[in-house]
Amino acid sequence: MTNAYTELPETELHSLEAALNKEYELVAANKLALDLSRGKPSAEQVALSDAMDTVIDGNFIAADGTDTRNYGGLRGLPEARELGAELLGVPAANVIAGGNSSLFFMHLCAATALRQGLWGDERRWSNDGASKVLTPVPGYDRHFALTAALGVEMVNIPISADGPDMQAARQLAADDPSVKGIWCVPKYSNPTGCTYSDATVHAMAELPNQAAADDFVVLWDNAYAVHELTDQGDQLASIFDAAHHAGSAEHVVQFASTSKITFAGGGLSFVASAEPVLAAIERALSFMMIGPDKVNQLRHARFLRGRLQQHMQAHAEILKPKFAAVQEILHAELGDLQIAEWTNPIGGYFVSLDVLPGLASEVVSMAKAVGLTLTPAGATFPHGDDPQDCNVRIAPTFASLEELRAAMQILTLCVKLASVRKLLNPQ
Amino acid sequence: MTNAYTELPETELHSLEAALNKEYELVAANKLALDLSRGKPSAEQVALSDAMDTVIDGNFIAADGTDTRNYGGLRGLPEARELGAELLGVPAANVIAGGNSSLFFMHLCAATALRQGLWGDERRWSNDGASKVLTPVPGYDRHFALTAALGVEMVNIPISADGPDMQAARQLAADDPSVKGIWCVPKYSNPTGCTYSDATVHAMAELPNQAAADDFVVLWDNAYAVHELTDQGDQLASIFDAAHHAGSAEHVVQFASTSKITFAGGGLSFVASAEPVLAAIERALSFMMIGPDKVNQLRHARFLRGRLQQHMQAHAEILKPKFAAVQEILHAELGDLQIAEWTNPIGGYFVSLDVLPGLASEVVSMAKAVGLTLTPAGATFPHGDDPQDCNVRIAPTFASLEELRAAMQILTLCVKLASVRKLLNPQ
Repeated sequence: MTNAYTELPETELHSLEAALNKEYELVAANKLALDLSRGKPSAEQVALSDAMDTVIDGNFIAADGTDTRNYGGLRGLPEARELGAELLGVPAANVIAGGNSSLFFMHLCAATALRQGLWGDERRWSNDGASKVLTPVPGYDRHFALTAALGVEMVNIPISADGPDMQAARQLAADDPSVKGIWCVPKYSNPTGCTYSDATVHAMAELPNQAAADDFVVLWDNAYAVHELTDQGDQLASIFDAAHHAGSAEHVVQFASTSKITFAGGGLSFVASAEPVLAAIERALSFMMIGPDKVNQLRHARFLRGRLQQHMQAHAEILKPKFAAVQEILHAELGDLQIAEWTNPIGGYFVSLDVLPGLASEVVSMAKAVGLTLTPAGATFPHGDDPQDCNVRIAPTFASLEELRAAMQILTLCVKLASVRKLLNPQ
Repeated sequence: MTNAYTELPETELHSLEAALNKEYELVAANKLALDLSRGKPSAEQVALSDAMDTVIDGNFIAADGTDTRNYGGLRGLPEARELGAELLGVPAANVIAGGNSSLFFMHLCAATALRQGLWGDERRWSNDGASKVLTPVPGYDRHFALTAALGVEMVNIPISADGPDMQAARQLAADDPSVKGIWCVPKYSNPTGCTYSDATVHAMAELPNQAAADDFVVLWDNAYAVHELTDQGDQLASIFDAAHHAGSAEHVVQFASTSKITFAGGGLSFVASAEPVLAAIERALSFMMIGPDKVNQLRHARFLRGRLQQHMQAHAEILKPKFAAVQEILHAELGDLQIAEWTNPIGGYFVSLDVLPGLASEVVSMAKAVGLTLTPAGATFPHGDDPQDCNVRIAPTFASLEELRAAMQILTLCVKLASVRKLLNPQ
């Protein structure tokens, strides 16, 4: 016997719809205000770093004697660069430590590649007219938004449990010199939670060599580098080592931040690459600032260095029950209905839920109507356009466990109701 | 009787040169390392804000309930916007409070005017091909550098004690639709220290109406809004009020920061304008960040609000003896020699010294050779090109009083020696 909706006779579907409708109306009457839309840490998580505010303790002088209260140092304080090096697994000399937003560095890097070039020579994406980057989907909406804002086209490629489809990436990059880069969230990818396999990392490091463009850039947003939910965690191969081996180090730019380590919005950002790229980014920065906020850099270095893993374990203790609740409710409510599939990541900030094709926006609207805000359907695709209209991103971190459980009950109810309706009225 | 070098007979100039040469060689033997090159606050000044690091005291929640440790709020924390409003003399609703660099906002504003437009319509500087901005000279080197980096041409206009030559500005703007804006440091201007007269402020507010371009922008960098050296200080008329009166509010964008109030590099920045401009800037920001560092915004608001004037008086107490020493030594050493002119500002960070035409780079080189670093000659002009080669910027704030006095003795010695040599060998 199966519970699969797809195999139910129409009469049973009708009575199911009636029951689910009643349940949905009861939820509507509760006038809830729940939100699973954004990957924000909870108040309990940010409070783990409250003590960071006390580490200056009257001593604003960095290890190298720099007075952090004054101007200067575009590449950042040495101990902040060391922190970024630890986070990204690269030498500190290859890191620039910046302000509170790694998205800023990503935008700056792409804008510089487009207009001034990243290598101190004549190469600029804009030289050849229209430029494109590859976007593994589903992916991170802000990557897509900044790319579109720069006037760069996006070409979707599929992503699986091992990472982006590298055969597709290779073919597109090799065939078309206007393909200039690829966006990557290599560990606990947003939203699927997958970590790129070793083979994917090595293939990615070779991609600039295989691309028709000589100014191809792998944009490696390692946003969840240390954001484990288990003791072991996924092991991501070093793109830095792989790129050095492949001779493509100048074509790989890594990003990270402490936004989901210390304070979201009050953290540090990092960009790492080979020297010509760092020099180009430093030059671009010089037109925008005299230097980063070194006081906050000093705070972070003193607070996190030597205890980063311990600190992230404290985050994991808060997050584990939430991610477990998501899996539990998805399994209990949708487990064998054959109307949805979802990921079960061991780190990061998201769970990716695929519903029946054509239903994602319907599910998100239905949830909204009864007080549950979800990430807009399509947000995980460029221009908000999910061609299958099937992907829903679940962000379980910000809500309390109780709210999260209530929200997941509503979400799964909406998935069931929308699915039954579709099965009764296929178009 | 006069001491003017220009009226000395050649024999006296020769013996003067010999004496000055001897003095210069003595200085060279001392192997000094002095620096009057950059407008940095001194360690004593930044220490005035050390207590800002203790005001959070475990309470990260802003007045409106915002948890400053988490994401969001692109326009900044309400109390930080209030602080910016106080600084710029505008309503808080017209202010965006940002990160640590007002230069970032200036770059963003000019880049947005150029590429996406500031008014939510089709107007963009780039629509008409080459664009230009007016640059009152001498002025601030980083304004010029960012303008050049954006590919925007600069057209110099003279600045006097009342501010830029508004007749020249009007004519250039009215005659040429590719003239899209003007850079202003309206109070204690960098480097002359002048404050724009009321007439200049009102003329500036009318300029967008008189310009041939319909997308003209007054870039109003009020970097020294509260940076007085006297109890009274210069009174700058409100460009906000003047622009509202003139109907040009959407064409005036103001900037300020706390870089020279709290921590240089660890402060807050502000941009103020009319709503369409703020919306355009917010949109541009949305591709670069989720929000500013609100923890640091909360620190600033708690530390400065209600005691800004008192705090700036403490700065003034430190700076007054330094600016007095500069005037004293300039007067004593160059007072009636007719080889130099200089400004005597009552606020800001600089004194502007004009030497005989053709001698500025010579003076800066001579000083460098004996261990005194000055702002590079020409830095106060676009592309580093001072057509008269006569302007030297003096930045007295960072050095100790003792170092400053030693440096001013060397600077005036170099001015005298270079002048005598020139008078002996006119080209």
